[in-house]
Amino acid sequence: MIGGVLLDLSGVLYVGSNALPGAHTALQRLRDSGLPLRYVTNTTRSPRTAILRQLAAMGFEIGTEQLFTAPDAARRYLRAHQLRPVLLIHRNLHPEFADFANQSPNAVLVGDAGEDFDYAHLNAAFRILAAGGELVAMGRNRYFQEQDGLSLDAGPFVCALEYGADVRAVVTGKPAADFFQTAVAELGCTAGETVMVGDDVEGDVLGAIDAGLQAALVRTGKFRDGDETRLRDTGAKVFADLSAVVDWILSQAGR
Amino acid sequence: MIGGVLLDLSGVLYVGSNALPGAHTALQRLRDSGLPLRYVTNTTRSPRTAILRQLAAMGFEIGTEQLFTAPDAARRYLRAHQLRPVLLIHRNLHPEFADFANQSPNAVLVGDAGEDFDYAHLNAAFRILAAGGELVAMGRNRYFQEQDGLSLDAGPFVCALEYGADVRAVVTGKPAADFFQTAVAELGCTAGETVMVGDDVEGDVLGAIDAGLQAALVRTGKFRDGDETRLRDTGAKVFADLSAVVDWILSQAGR
Repeated sequence: MIGGVLLDLSGVLYVGSNALPGAHTALQRLRDSGLPLRYVTNTTRSPRTAILRQLAAMGFEIGTEQLFTAPDAARRYLRAHQLRPVLLIHRNLHPEFADFANQSPNAVLVGDAGEDFDYAHLNAAFRILAAGGELVAMGRNRYFQEQDGLSLDAGPFVCALEYGADVRAVVTGKPAADFFQTAVAELGCTAGETVMVGDDVEGDVLGAIDAGLQAALVRTGKFRDGDETRLRDTGAKVFADLSAVVDWILSQAGR
Repeated sequence: MIGGVLLDLSGVLYVGSNALPGAHTALQRLRDSGLPLRYVTNTTRSPRTAILRQLAAMGFEIGTEQLFTAPDAARRYLRAHQLRPVLLIHRNLHPEFADFANQSPNAVLVGDAGEDFDYAHLNAAFRILAAGGELVAMGRNRYFQEQDGLSLDAGPFVCALEYGADVRAVVTGKPAADFFQTAVAELGCTAGETVMVGDDVEGDVLGAIDAGLQAALVRTGKFRDGDETRLRDTGAKVFADLSAVVDWILSQAGR
């Protein structure tokens, strides 16, 4: 019944710059099982190389070919649709989009811009949209867990622009079905045989269910009591943490 | 059929710091008719005294008792509900809310904060809401007309906070029915005999219709082609500018 696994990163393996208790052992057991495994993240504050370096510093060695990111998906989308975006993204990520011409922009690309979500940048983006530009969002996550509390992710700012300009964003990362399917295609199993594991009830779990995957919500990271009630009748499972998910996966997969 | 008039200010009488063509004459004809008249504004970048001073500088002399503002309505709401708000409002407006205790805040008050809509302020507000605070918005206008183009008003930032914290704002200015009714109560006629005149299809016109008033949309200020299609079957009228509205009002009122 389970032929492959997609793992979210932040909130599942670590929070901030600290590995979650038991995450190393759980991940190792999953890898040792031989089940195909890929990592899928909507993190848009760091480029791919920095994500991998940060993971390695916490003791998670992951090959670059195993990592699927929302910025990669955004690059594919912008290219396919010949868009010239104004960038409302984190300054760390600008180099990854430097090759998109930004003269006579016809789109706005939104990621988690952090401190660059200010009035001047948002208003400039709004004016592009009000003039007919396309809104492309790498995710619409509401918030993420920082060590001192929850912090606003890109989703609220995507909503602000949608409402201001009366448009709808195209989302390229989770929960877009295309994003999940691109990762599933690497696993050698079907969407229905794949389990998505994450701490975000919407982006990770409901998104995966809508895309035809199985899904598991962990009670770590940004999980909040009550999130699990949104999974009623979806078939998604809820677990204490990655260790508990791996127990279940290995029993289901007969490994 | 028409016993009183409510006039929006920005986009109806002026744009930026310039009176609109014909607005002085039209307003004078309306005043000379003797119809009861009040001014209703969601402007939250300036305190009442500055609004009146700015109007006077453009040749519009308006008595303070004739002006109904969204910040006034917010003060009444906060007081009635014993709220201690964190202020996400324009710095010009801070003195008007200085008397609300802001220790152990249990609410967030949003107006058009302009440049203070930055990540740090929005995230601090989000955390109050995520902890159960109440969201109070002086308006939910999408944008306003500046001399160099449209600019984001408070509404998009209200949406951002609503989405981030999964809450709904209480709106105290237009299009809240309470706001219109407080102004109508001064006119000496019923809501059904009152015409609301504005350039914002949602805040002014659809809001007034929902509150039981008549309404007229002007094609000045932030009006955009297509706005009028949203008024189908509402009974609201559309006019080129305030002069045309006044022609219609005086003919309806038999003056």
